[in-house]
Amino acid sequence: MKELGYYNGTWGPLDQMTVPMNDRSSWFGDGVYDAAYCYNYKIYMLDAHIDRFYRGAELLKIKIPHTKAELKQLLQEIVLNLDSHEQFVYWQVTRAHEGARTHNFAEPPVPGNMWITLTTRPAIDVYKPVKLMTMEDTRYLHCNVKTLNLIPAVMATHAATQAGCYEAVLHRGDRVTECAHSNVSILKDGVFRTAPTDNLILPGIARANLIRFCGQLGIPVVEEPFTVDELRNADEIIVSSSCAFCISAYELDGHPVGGKAPELLRALKDAAVNDFKTATARTMPIAK
Amino acid sequence: MKELGYYNGTWGPLDQMTVPMNDRSSWFGDGVYDAAYCYNYKIYMLDAHIDRFYRGAELLKIKIPHTKAELKQLLQEIVLNLDSHEQFVYWQVTRAHEGARTHNFAEPPVPGNMWITLTTRPAIDVYKPVKLMTMEDTRYLHCNVKTLNLIPAVMATHAATQAGCYEAVLHRGDRVTECAHSNVSILKDGVFRTAPTDNLILPGIARANLIRFCGQLGIPVVEEPFTVDELRNADEIIVSSSCAFCISAYELDGHPVGGKAPELLRALKDAAVNDFKTATARTMPIAK
Repeated sequence: MKELGYYNGTWGPLDQMTVPMNDRSSWFGDGVYDAAYCYNYKIYMLDAHIDRFYRGAELLKIKIPHTKAELKQLLQEIVLNLDSHEQFVYWQVTRAHEGARTHNFAEPPVPGNMWITLTTRPAIDVYKPVKLMTMEDTRYLHCNVKTLNLIPAVMATHAATQAGCYEAVLHRGDRVTECAHSNVSILKDGVFRTAPTDNLILPGIARANLIRFCGQLGIPVVEEPFTVDELRNADEIIVSSSCAFCISAYELDGHPVGGKAPELLRALKDAAVNDFKTATARTMPIAK
Repeated sequence: MKELGYYNGTWGPLDQMTVPMNDRSSWFGDGVYDAAYCYNYKIYMLDAHIDRFYRGAELLKIKIPHTKAELKQLLQEIVLNLDSHEQFVYWQVTRAHEGARTHNFAEPPVPGNMWITLTTRPAIDVYKPVKLMTMEDTRYLHCNVKTLNLIPAVMATHAATQAGCYEAVLHRGDRVTECAHSNVSILKDGVFRTAPTDNLILPGIARANLIRFCGQLGIPVVEEPFTVDELRNADEIIVSSSCAFCISAYELDGHPVGGKAPELLRALKDAAVNDFKTATARTMPIAK
């Protein structure tokens, strides 16, 4: 299978799958998701993604219809059905629907609907630097949760793509928050600086990994807000996500940026790639 | 039929309808909706709802697959299929899906997917006052558009319902914006005060009607931000939506409010009810 869709136990080719119109994703985007990269049929950082998924659902009082162990097993087994070694594994839970469209929901919550999609996605080359643009962050104040309320991220991504950029760096006034679908951090004077994990950014798993690699490499880490000016004047700008672990930028809003700490940057990228390769290695390849 | 669902020309009982999993509502809540009350098989204020729907879709670069005239005709004809004189008519457009889940979309936009639902909903008694509670407004900065990104409204409605309240009045710091799914206005010293239609509130059609009725009744209107304190000390608090034209409050956060301008309030409620009755009257009832 090239692309797979799963909904509450039913699955098949993604473009043939349907879901009930009355699922609350239809009316409210009322769900929480997570996604991970899968290589060699091994899902990278799965435990961390699962933990974040359950935390997000709990914050929104959405009941996931599986235990963590069940969901991990389901994901690890379902990826074997795709004809690709390189997969984007995406899953979400939507709040249980009860009768007509109504904002309110049951308390205590009843089990929601479980979705999975698998698509082929080649690994992103972290050694290829990118262009970025800045945009005012107009999102809600729940950016710590990966919800399906993503229109501002859609619009920001579209604006960035139209401008020939890989990502939009969002800021609330002076303060840089994150990108439309990545975190953003900087290297300055040998220090790795990244925004704190409050309600304005997603606690990225690739970001947490970068902090871990900094520890291994002896790079000091400061988790404090930084400004758009500090971004522009950074030695390096690093964009990170679960499919693009450590991407650096060479241009921001049409002006050159970064390039002033190439050794540190290279060490971080190498650490990210090595961690991924080690975690997804197989002694016995699967014949697919 | 008791509840009807429609998707791109296919329709049937709502709870039997399915939609493609790959509709962008599934992943991003990437759509715009509107809804109106229908009585006697006449959709109240349809032109205003249609105009707002098209404005919102244009702001998000979502292409509606019909002209305004076509959509009006479709809605006016489809309501005849429900076995009820009292309907909540809801419609939305979701952005066209193009391949795998990706934030980006085509420019220029291609025609999106058209959804309609019809459900039975008895008219709300505007003469019955309600309880309200206040909550910090944590929504995005696009509240002027009726998008499917409604989780903050879902959570606020749930909190209000758990507290035995009809609505949650949202505020950004001191400034009252609107409710989870209604506008909020106040009467004070004979003046109707309501927030301006910036990006922090929806330009409600019931709200615009109240301003129109104020004109007819000689009540001065001030469209300026007001504070939570001004809300607490208002002569009357008025909550308005397309299904509840002019509801007043007798309690806010557990404390008595309003009740100090009953004649003005009554005049506004009567005007709202009369306008609705006149617009939805039939000389020749439909036999349903």
